[in-house]
Amino acid sequence: MTVEQNTQAPVSAEQRVREEELVARVLASFDGTPNRRLKEIMHAAVRHLHAFMREVRLTEEEWKQGIDFLTAIGHITDDRRQEFILLSDTLGVSMQTIAINNEAYADATEATVFGPFFVDNSPEIGQGGDLAADVSGQPCWIEGTVRDTEGRPVPGARIEVWEADEDGFYDVQYDDDRTAGRAHLFSADDGSYRFWGSTPVPYPIPHDGPVGRMLEATGRSPLRAAHVHFMVSAPGFRTLVTHIFVRGDELLDSDSVFGVKESLVKDFEEQPAGTPTPDGRDLGDRTWSRTRFDIVLAPADV
Amino acid sequence: MTVEQNTQAPVSAEQRVREEELVARVLASFDGTPNRRLKEIMHAAVRHLHAFMREVRLTEEEWKQGIDFLTAIGHITDDRRQEFILLSDTLGVSMQTIAINNEAYADATEATVFGPFFVDNSPEIGQGGDLAADVSGQPCWIEGTVRDTEGRPVPGARIEVWEADEDGFYDVQYDDDRTAGRAHLFSADDGSYRFWGSTPVPYPIPHDGPVGRMLEATGRSPLRAAHVHFMVSAPGFRTLVTHIFVRGDELLDSDSVFGVKESLVKDFEEQPAGTPTPDGRDLGDRTWSRTRFDIVLAPADV
Repeated sequence: MTVEQNTQAPVSAEQRVREEELVARVLASFDGTPNRRLKEIMHAAVRHLHAFMREVRLTEEEWKQGIDFLTAIGHITDDRRQEFILLSDTLGVSMQTIAINNEAYADATEATVFGPFFVDNSPEIGQGGDLAADVSGQPCWIEGTVRDTEGRPVPGARIEVWEADEDGFYDVQYDDDRTAGRAHLFSADDGSYRFWGSTPVPYPIPHDGPVGRMLEATGRSPLRAAHVHFMVSAPGFRTLVTHIFVRGDELLDSDSVFGVKESLVKDFEEQPAGTPTPDGRDLGDRTWSRTRFDIVLAPADV
Repeated sequence: MTVEQNTQAPVSAEQRVREEELVARVLASFDGTPNRRLKEIMHAAVRHLHAFMREVRLTEEEWKQGIDFLTAIGHITDDRRQEFILLSDTLGVSMQTIAINNEAYADATEATVFGPFFVDNSPEIGQGGDLAADVSGQPCWIEGTVRDTEGRPVPGARIEVWEADEDGFYDVQYDDDRTAGRAHLFSADDGSYRFWGSTPVPYPIPHDGPVGRMLEATGRSPLRAAHVHFMVSAPGFRTLVTHIFVRGDELLDSDSVFGVKESLVKDFEEQPAGTPTPDGRDLGDRTWSRTRFDIVLAPADV
């Protein structure tokens, strides 16, 4: 992406009036929108879009590059790859959507980005089950309790978990229709849950397309801090979409999609080979790790 | 496009801080951009995009609809159809780009949108030639003079002209590779030019895609005011991209791409069948029209 230097001359009062009159005409064209909310959104979109262009004094060549950039994003997007979500993620737009719609409530667990790799109808595992059986990587014991903001256990909460393999890929990124590194389980009567996953590792978001070129042109890394995805839902509670991150990960401050929140960074304790496992599972000569993630759900109506 | 009503609760100070901190992190991620201009554009894009989302309190469902809208635009765009330019046109973004980059200069002719239908290497016609020979519609005699802002004739200016046929379609919208309704000629030694075209008629922009659905959902018409496209270039002058419009056209105030400027509205005088033509051409029992478009070019360096 090459962009010429733009030397911005001051804008004359007459020119400012011409530009503002145009904005007013565009806004007026949406006055007849039947849906009040759609009208509000279109009005705001037009105002901010024109304010952006006028502020940077967008050149015709830059406008054309913008059209080409969006076109390339559209053309690489298909059933398996959503480059517009990737753009939204890397501009912090996805994370801001989460922030706007999941206001902090008491000590409820914070939300973060959903990402493009969730799939409906994951397999169910029981307490202590292994969602990473078919995934490369170090086994990781994850346990915790689901509670409400009054500290009461939430039994029967549906806990969806999904994560990348040791090579940084989710099952859906392979061509062979595998299901791996994803599952759901339900919290027990005392709100507790436990399962085997794999220790998360950092990986790049797909960066061989237009969003990758944007990151490269702006000197940004495509790497995401290591994380495990959670989505936790129960009747009467706000559905929680979040991750847990690994304390000590060097990428915590430069996550390419701005997903990290301090409250979601957890200790993953490395266990030498031979260390007895919580459920007596025999891991032979493999090392493993363990972490704890206690989840607090906000009420549905906040 | 259905959008739920959003009842916007006031945003708490704590929530505002969280949202602003996120914007600051996204901006900081672009600090290492080597190209100063690209950095300026990315910073401004992030600020305005987040300001838009925060102002309307964009919901997660609306965000998803936005992603789907952009995806549909990307997927309908191909070599023959550019739906992103159509979106830019219908949001006034194309016209604002023109406004920003073609400041008024003395009495130079005003610019307007380029549109998606220009094609390089149009056929050349001589003075008085007919670019509408293969196009349906009423013959229209167009004449004028190309001058500089001091009133001096500009000889040899290249005048590109393109227009839709009586059915509202440009040649490139047909599948048969025809070239029709477009040509270029050069101004004479005294700056004058004259040619036959066809009287322009209103037509809709392509509205069977996502942009058409946006127009419909917002109660807007896809119709463009009737117009003839001009692009005029000569060494030492700023290239002029513009249209002329038809005085009396009911669509002058509601042009779907905001291209109309009062200075570009011209009288098209209807001529009864049998009225002698300026060049003696025999039109038999056909009616025809005539108009005058005197062009003033700005210097290249303003």
